[in-house]
Amino acid sequence: MKNFLSVNDAGNINNLVKTALNFKKNPLASYALGKGKRMGLMFLNPSMRTRLSTQIAAQNLGMEVIVFNAGQDGWSLEFEEGAIMNGSTAEHVKDAAPILGKYFDILGVRTFPSLKNREEDYSEKIIQQFVKYSGIPIVSLESATVHPLQSLTDIITISERLPVKAKPKVVLTWAPHVKPLPQCVANSFSQWINAWGQTEFVIANPAGYDLDTNFTNGAVVTNDQAQALKDADFVYVKNWSSYKDYGKIIPVEDDWMLTKNKLAVTNNARVMHCLPVRRNVELSDEVLDSSNSLVTEEAGNRVWAAQAVLADILNGLL
Amino acid sequence: MKNFLSVNDAGNINNLVKTALNFKKNPLASYALGKGKRMGLMFLNPSMRTRLSTQIAAQNLGMEVIVFNAGQDGWSLEFEEGAIMNGSTAEHVKDAAPILGKYFDILGVRTFPSLKNREEDYSEKIIQQFVKYSGIPIVSLESATVHPLQSLTDIITISERLPVKAKPKVVLTWAPHVKPLPQCVANSFSQWINAWGQTEFVIANPAGYDLDTNFTNGAVVTNDQAQALKDADFVYVKNWSSYKDYGKIIPVEDDWMLTKNKLAVTNNARVMHCLPVRRNVELSDEVLDSSNSLVTEEAGNRVWAAQAVLADILNGLL
Amino acid sequence: MKNFLSVNDAGNINNLVKTALNFKKNPLASYALGKGKRMGLMFLNPSMRTRLSTQIAAQNLGMEVIVFNAGQDGWSLEFEEGAIMNGSTAEHVKDAAPILGKYFDILGVRTFPSLKNREEDYSEKIIQQFVKYSGIPIVSLESATVHPLQSLTDIITISERLPVKAKPKVVLTWAPHVKPLPQCVANSFSQWINAWGQTEFVIANPAGYDLDTNFTNGAVVTNDQAQALKDADFVYVKNWSSYKDYGKIIPVEDDWMLTKNKLAVTNNARVMHCLPVRRNVELSDEVLDSSNSLVTEEAGNRVWAAQAVLADILNGLL
Repeated sequence: MKNFLSVNDAGNINNLVKTALNFKKNPLASYALGKGKRMGLMFLNPSMRTRLSTQIAAQNLGMEVIVFNAGQDGWSLEFEEGAIMNGSTAEHVKDAAPILGKYFDILGVRTFPSLKNREEDYSEKIIQQFVKYSGIPIVSLESATVHPLQSLTDIITISERLPVKAKPKVVLTWAPHVKPLPQCVANSFSQWINAWGQTEFVIANPAGYDLDTNFTNGAVVTNDQAQALKDADFVYVKNWSSYKDYGKIIPVEDDWMLTKNKLAVTNNARVMHCLPVRRNVELSDEVLDSSNSLVTEEAGNRVWAAQAVLADILNGLL
Repeated sequence: MKNFLSVNDAGNINNLVKTALNFKKNPLASYALGKGKRMGLMFLNPSMRTRLSTQIAAQNLGMEVIVFNAGQDGWSLEFEEGAIMNGSTAEHVKDAAPILGKYFDILGVRTFPSLKNREEDYSEKIIQQFVKYSGIPIVSLESATVHPLQSLTDIITISERLPVKAKPKVVLTWAPHVKPLPQCVANSFSQWINAWGQTEFVIANPAGYDLDTNFTNGAVVTNDQAQALKDADFVYVKNWSSYKDYGKIIPVEDDWMLTKNKLAVTNNARVMHCLPVRRNVELSDEVLDSSNSLVTEEAGNRVWAAQAVLADILNGLL
Repeated sequence: MKNFLSVNDAGNINNLVKTALNFKKNPLASYALGKGKRMGLMFLNPSMRTRLSTQIAAQNLGMEVIVFNAGQDGWSLEFEEGAIMNGSTAEHVKDAAPILGKYFDILGVRTFPSLKNREEDYSEKIIQQFVKYSGIPIVSLESATVHPLQSLTDIITISERLPVKAKPKVVLTWAPHVKPLPQCVANSFSQWINAWGQTEFVIANPAGYDLDTNFTNGAVVTNDQAQALKDADFVYVKNWSSYKDYGKIIPVEDDWMLTKNKLAVTNNARVMHCLPVRRNVELSDEVLDSSNSLVTEEAGNRVWAAQAVLADILNGLL
C-alpha cells in the first residue's frame, strides 16, 4: 500500500491480520526491512496508545522514529488555501508538509475533527493535505472521520477469539460520555467490519446518534440496546457525538452504560473498547475488571497492527 | 531485584555501588544485556536530571527508551478505585498500566505527592498502583515519599570521597525555599544512609520540620544547625515542607541558608545537593562555586546509579 | 571547530559546503564517526526544522540524540550572576550546564532574544553561559542574534544553484510580519554572505530597520526595494524587528510583501526564506508556489548543514 488512511488502503484484510499475528509471535522478524529508513510521528492532538504502539512498531522494523507534537514543540499550522496569514497560525501545511517529506520516509499524522463543520471534517481536509503536499506515504494515526489502525487492531483481536460459528455476532453499542467525541472509531469499526464481511453486525445507538451511512452501509441499526445485545459474541462499546446534529451531545433518557447485567443476554460476549475509557460512565467496573474484557489485549495488539501496515508500506518503498 | 521503589529493594548497597562505579569506568560494558528490551519513562511531573540520566543509563545497556509525559503528550490519569469518571481524568491507571506493561519490559514512573493528604501520599498509592496493574518491573523516578535513584547516587558520591576514618560524619541540613517541597529526598537519603550504616548521621532542621521517624530511625535529630555541622565530613543540604503540619511552610526565625562561614566548623566538608538548587536561598554562591561542592559530580553519578539498578533488573528478566 | 556559534567558528566555508553536499549524496558516509557519542538538543524556544534536521544529522553520524524542552519537560533557568533565586526560575545555568556537559558529548542550544534589552541580547549572554559552564562543544540552534546553521544552509542552497557569472547578485529584502521577530536570520545571513565573499550583496529594508553594521559590514543597504531587486539572482525574504528602536515594529507605508510582479525586474531570481513563512503577508502564494521558490529544498538542506558541522566537531573530539 502507498498510504494508510482507511480500509480502502488495506487490500486483503485477512492477509494484514496474518502478518500482524506473525509479528506478535516474532516482533523482530523483519528488523532489517526498515534499516536506514526514518518515520516521523506528528501529533496535532494528544495520544498515548497510538503514540507508543506506532513508535514501537517502527522500531521493531529497524526504523528510526522521531515524534513531534505540532503546536507544542513547534507551532500551529494553517490549512486554508490562499489564507492571508496575519493571525495565529504560523506555518502553512503547503510549506511544512513537503519538508517533512524530505526529512522522513513515512509520516504518521494524528488530527481530530473540529466537530463544528461537518462537511469540512468529512472531506478529511487536513490529512489529505499531508498526502497532497508531503510526497511520502502517510499513515493515519486517527483523522477527522476514521481511525484505521484501531480498526485493524479490532479485527485482529476478534480474529484471535473467533468462536467456531458461521457468523459470530458483533454489536457496536453507543455509550454515554461527558464530552462530545468524534465519530472516528465507530465509523471506522463499522467500515472495517463491513469490509471484512465475516460477522453478523448490529449497531445500537440512541435516536439522533445514527452514524453516516457511508460507513455503516450493510449494518443493522437499532435504538434498542437490549435487543441488539441478544446472543452477541463481541460487544464493542464506544461513545460518539451526533452526526446529524453535528458534534452535539443529544440528551438520552435511557441508561446506555454497559453493565454486567446487560451482558446476561449475550453469548458470554467478549467486551471491547479502544480506550481511554470513562469507567462507570461508558462501562461499569465489573465489566472492565471481568474476564470478558478484551481491552488490554486489544490495546496490546495496536503494536502488531501498526507493524503489519508499516511493513507493507516499507515493502512498497523497496 | 524485581522493582526499585526504595532502599528495601536494593539488596546489598555496596554491591550496587561497586556495579555503578564499574559502569562509570566502562559505560558500555553491558551493552548486550538490554538488547531487544524496551524501557518506558513516564513522567507525571517534570524532571531534568532523572529524565536524562535514566534515559542514558538504559541506552548504555542497549535498551530502546521511550519517554512519555502523561497529561502533556497524553491525558490525566485517575487513581481512585470505583471512581465514576465524569470529571477531568480521562483514563484509569487500572486500564493504562496493564497496557504499558504490554508495551515495555521495564517502566520508570515519576510522580509527586499532593502535599495535601499525608496518609494517601505516605501510602505511595500512585506508584503502588503501577506495580499492581502493570505486571512489569517498576523503577521509581521519585515517588510521593522517596527518591531512591537519587539516594543511591548520593551513597556512590560519598563512597568516592570517603575519608580514611572509622565513621565519617554525614549531616543532612534543612534549607529555606520559596515553595513547599516534598520530603522525598530527605526521607530517602536518611533511609539509605541508615541502611548503609557506614557513617555517623545527624539531621538538623528547624522545629516543626522533623521527618517521619520511619525514615530517620537511628539518626540524631537536632534543631541546632551549628552544633550539627561541627566536624562534619559531608553536608547534604535540602529543603522540605513540614511532615507534621503536612505540606506547609512553617516560618523559621534563624537563617538556615548554608554559607561558607557556617562550614568553618566542619572537617572541610564536602557539600551535596540533589539539584535543582535555589542559589542564595538554600546555599550561597560561594559554597556552590567552591571546590567543596560535589553537586555536579553528584548529578553526573545519576547515570551510573540508574545503570546499576537497571542492569540488576535486566539480569532478573533473563 | 570547537563550538559552532557563528560564522567565526566556520573555518573555510567552501569546505563545509563541500562536506555537506557529500553527505547529501551519501547520508550515512560517516556513520561510524559518532558511534558511542551522545548529543543533547536543548530548546528554550520552539522549533520544527532545526529540531528535526539536527536530530537527523546526528543520527546519520551514528550518535544517540536526546531532545529536551527546558521549561516544558523541566523548568526555567536563571542566567543572572549572583541572583537570589526566590522567584520563578528554578535552576541556575551555572548548575545545569556542567551537568549537561557530563551527560552529553555535544550540546545544541536554542534560545531567543528578549527583544527588550539590546545590549544584553547582543552580548549573547545566554548561549555564552552554556559555552562557559558546560565544558563541551556548543552548537547554536539559533541564539539571540544569529542562526548559523540556517546561514550555512543558505550558502549551500545558493551554491547548488550558482549561475555561471562572476558575482551573482544576492538581495536580502525585509518583509512585513504580524509579530516583532528577532534580527537573527538577517544578521547571520549578512555575516555569512559577507564572509563567503562570492556575491554582490544588497540589503533592502524600510527606514528604521537597518541591521547592526557589525553584521552587514560591506553590504549595500537601501530603502528602495524595487531598485535592489533589479537583476537579482537570489532574493532572500525575511522579516525582522527594528534594531535601532530595539525590538519594535515601526509602521511602514509601502507594501514590502514580495510578489511575482516585483520579481519581474530580477534575473528570474530564485526566492529563499528560512521558514516558517506567513503566506500573503511576507510572500505571496504565487511566488511560494512557483518554480522560483527554493524554500523546500533550502529546508531540506538543513540536515546536511548540521551534519557537516557535527562531523567537524566530532573529528575534533577524536
